[in-house]
Amino acid sequence: MTQVVERLREALGDRVHADAAARHAHRRDWWVLSELQDLEGRGPAAPLAVVEPISTQEVARTLAIYREARVPVVPYGGGSGVCGGIRSEAGDVILATAELSGLVELDDRNLTATFRAGTNGLAAEQEVQGHGLTIGHWPQSIELASVGGLVATRSAAQFSTAYGNVEDLILDLEVVLPDGRVLRTRRTPRASAGPDLRHLFLGSEGTLGVITEVTFSLRPLPEAQRGQAFHFPDLETGVDGVRRILRDGFRPAVVRLYDAKESGRNFGDACPEGRCFLLLHHVGPAELVDAQEVGVARRCAAAGGAEADPATVDHWLEHRNRVPGFDVFLEKGIILDTIEVASTWEHLVPIHRAAIASLEQVEGLLSASAHTSHAYRSGTNLYFTFLARPDERPQMEARYRECWRRVMDATVANGGGIAHHHGIGRVRAGRLAEEIGAPGVDLLRAVKRALDPDGLLNPGALLPGADG
Amino acid sequence: MTQVVERLREALGDRVHADAAARHAHRRDWWVLSELQDLEGRGPAAPLAVVEPISTQEVARTLAIYREARVPVVPYGGGSGVCGGIRSEAGDVILATAELSGLVELDDRNLTATFRAGTNGLAAEQEVQGHGLTIGHWPQSIELASVGGLVATRSAAQFSTAYGNVEDLILDLEVVLPDGRVLRTRRTPRASAGPDLRHLFLGSEGTLGVITEVTFSLRPLPEAQRGQAFHFPDLETGVDGVRRILRDGFRPAVVRLYDAKESGRNFGDACPEGRCFLLLHHVGPAELVDAQEVGVARRCAAAGGAEADPATVDHWLEHRNRVPGFDVFLEKGIILDTIEVASTWEHLVPIHRAAIASLEQVEGLLSASAHTSHAYRSGTNLYFTFLARPDERPQMEARYRECWRRVMDATVANGGGIAHHHGIGRVRAGRLAEEIGAPGVDLLRAVKRALDPDGLLNPGALLPGADG
Repeated sequence: MTQVVERLREALGDRVHADAAARHAHRRDWWVLSELQDLEGRGPAAPLAVVEPISTQEVARTLAIYREARVPVVPYGGGSGVCGGIRSEAGDVILATAELSGLVELDDRNLTATFRAGTNGLAAEQEVQGHGLTIGHWPQSIELASVGGLVATRSAAQFSTAYGNVEDLILDLEVVLPDGRVLRTRRTPRASAGPDLRHLFLGSEGTLGVITEVTFSLRPLPEAQRGQAFHFPDLETGVDGVRRILRDGFRPAVVRLYDAKESGRNFGDACPEGRCFLLLHHVGPAELVDAQEVGVARRCAAAGGAEADPATVDHWLEHRNRVPGFDVFLEKGIILDTIEVASTWEHLVPIHRAAIASLEQVEGLLSASAHTSHAYRSGTNLYFTFLARPDERPQMEARYRECWRRVMDATVANGGGIAHHHGIGRVRAGRLAEEIGAPGVDLLRAVKRALDPDGLLNPGALLPGADG
Repeated sequence: MTQVVERLREALGDRVHADAAARHAHRRDWWVLSELQDLEGRGPAAPLAVVEPISTQEVARTLAIYREARVPVVPYGGGSGVCGGIRSEAGDVILATAELSGLVELDDRNLTATFRAGTNGLAAEQEVQGHGLTIGHWPQSIELASVGGLVATRSAAQFSTAYGNVEDLILDLEVVLPDGRVLRTRRTPRASAGPDLRHLFLGSEGTLGVITEVTFSLRPLPEAQRGQAFHFPDLETGVDGVRRILRDGFRPAVVRLYDAKESGRNFGDACPEGRCFLLLHHVGPAELVDAQEVGVARRCAAAGGAEADPATVDHWLEHRNRVPGFDVFLEKGIILDTIEVASTWEHLVPIHRAAIASLEQVEGLLSASAHTSHAYRSGTNLYFTFLARPDERPQMEARYRECWRRVMDATVANGGGIAHHHGIGRVRAGRLAEEIGAPGVDLLRAVKRALDPDGLLNPGALLPGADG
């Protein structure tokens, strides 16, 4: 095993870190269960070493060494995943992209910016904003995530309803394949040249290759921005309001509808008790923002919505990324998480009702609630939050897994999809067949075997079972 | 060989056609080179038989028989491809989807419509229009194409700039895999559950499976529609006008900019000689159409455009799908075709200039021109048309191949992508590595081998070489 570290050192010199601090820091992502296990002294094992290549060539060389030595390798971007996509085992080597960072090229006329994959999401956004442009991708994890990680997890972000998700924002990718060859897709706005190879790596969670460069198709910073808010009698009428907005072709950047519990918790001053709050944010040319505001107001009124104070939107924009760490809860014996699923319009309220009712049966449940934050013509996501404090601390993991199982069961039983944008990781790898069927899982496995016959890239994530 | 027809007959009865007329009619798509070779009496050989399954189960049974007998099978939708994606060889069996037709389910609230894959494109659109809805996908081939074929070729269509291309319009797919298993993706508006498997089949051109059902995410028929037109001093300023419109976030459904030659030919009454005509069509809520018209006019004026008669747009809308057949030209010894490529903004005019200049060196060239008809934030497509009449009729095929080679060379040399929306077929299968690199071609081959190890599905299309 240490032989592989020797060989890596020969090839990459001081980019290979075998010290305890580096190995400890790269054991896992932000999956709350890994954090809980850490607190309980039974967290993931430290990897053998951490390699931080500074170029695509070094990534290729690293993968060649892994392959020769048959050592599992876990690609590590910002480490901000929340589903256990990264979780090392003793003997793994981590391939971290932190040093594969920075802007390669920015072109104002073509609206393109190419970043090395390890570039921090917020740093990338700030870089293009310096030129009056925006990537337009604002996940809550933007201060932690890497641009390569956003692609590898099929990220969705706060402005998605106008700007699209990460698959709508990228032009070309560079990926080092498991065999060390470098794939570069062509920089064109669109192609019909066989299956779109970018989509093999969007959502691959490090199992099919290492993303080394990402080119975004940018936008100028919007000429106008405006908040707008409504409250509705209940979730059903609120969903109907969102449905009407999307149906008729309006695309506010932010469309967030909260259930009564979250509305009260977050917008109590602006939202009468028991009602559901809808927060909207428009961006774009001034003419379009004006027109959209009028059109949206009409649809919300038709669905039974009442106008609310738009200042709530400014407050949300300012505070949207301030979330407490898990640790303060875990130390108090509270287990918690968020679970995002998706469905067509007809299933949203039934999924919400069934999941909340099921969560309420969990021993020690403190809170179960949801909102929707990404809207499409045919439906939206649902973003559940649960907190539970079991009587016995050792029951925290079991209660956690029970909460997940209940939300997954309620979602699937009511016709929803199991994952909107956090990815599969380990937390729902066992449920993948309920999303894409056994033939879909077998198909993914066949692709995995074709690209990575020895199963060395991030084994254990995404694809369930030993040969994943 | 006839054994396989026997077995098919046992399984599918009178859905198996071995008569000369059926076999003749399914030998090829609309690729002009196949048509020329037909006229010269050396066209594609008739297949062994044509099977027309009426259900997903029958498609699965058909593929199982092929696989057992190791007989190549060519999926055939509407037959309207123009790149030679369908071209039978003696011994092939055609799997035609014409009887796998009709609406499965339409849901006005979810805005979904599921069609069997062989449903004609126009029939599908008319079906949903009967409910006040639209698929919003209007390829010029809509009267001929099947909805499955539109997916298999990654179709783009006339209203794409507002509505998106086929990959933006579908929700879920049902596909029979080469091993006869049925893959059904989940009906959710979006997922992060591994690589998006729909994208393996979008653009697969019948090489990876047989698409049997397609669910679209619909729109209501637009509240308002309005034409708008401008002319620009030259192609460079016209491209700049389109770039400004897209950059600032406006999305007319139709954005067509013609070079001076095509402007004169098609819009001579409305466009002063030598100038470039821009045709726009807005659709959507009345407020947004009004606002967009104002915003677009401002951007076009800033780029040097002058307003033109919007009645030209109505005329274009009425006549847009009336194109003469190839036969009248071929009989006169004229060879012709269209070639669509794509690029970022900076490369468009250089590609246009280089391709037209190169085409003008072809012996007997009658005309070479182009327009752009699908616009994105970072660039557009370019759609070339060429006609040539070589001195000697037997030179037609050689001149045809030379024209293609020249446009592909000029596109690649100037940084463009080789195919915007017609697909690869056979006409540019040899150029695929120039789009996705040798690693990309090898990757596609590995996926193909993983799904179809005997290489039986549509061999010869998409992937170049014998083992494709």
